[in-house]
Amino acid sequence: MKAIVTVMLKTGVLDPQGKAIGQALVGLGFSGVGEVRAGKVLEIELAETDPVAARAQAEEMARKLLANMVIESFRVEVA
Amino acid sequence: MKAIVTVMLKTGVLDPQGKAIGQALVGLGFSGVGEVRAGKVLEIELAETDPVAARAQAEEMARKLLANMVIESFRVEVA
Repeated sequence: MKAIVTVMLKTGVLDPQGKAIGQALVGLGFSGVGEVRAGKVLEIELAETDPVAARAQAEEMARKLLANMVIESFRVEVA
Repeated sequence: MKAIVTVMLKTGVLDPQGKAIGQALVGLGFSGVGEVRAGKVLEIELAETDPVAARAQAEEMARKLLANMVIESFRVEVA
């Protein structure tokens, strides 16, 4: 199965990369641009075939390696 | 509306970051880890209220700034 782990900075944590992208979009002439938040996404191929077990494994990966739980949160999709 | 733009390296483009993460996961004892691909995700608040127009605007942002179309592909979700 494929697990997609999306890691974002928690709400309230300053996101200078997102802010810079937002300013660049405005500079390019895009209007109506509000807050921009930048994060990372990991697509992980897993040998596990059970969706529940695959999700549990991906969540453990996120907690142990992929996300810094002090300042980041994550969500997992399994497909 | 909120647009979520996910930018990934195209298939076939070497992804050293993904490879390093995959090796780290194996090193941590995770089994059954196949290919890992790393990408970025941008969550953009848009003033636009029409989903079709918001998606079109986010796609234009991706083509102009967020993705390098030579080596990266993107997908847009609107919520």
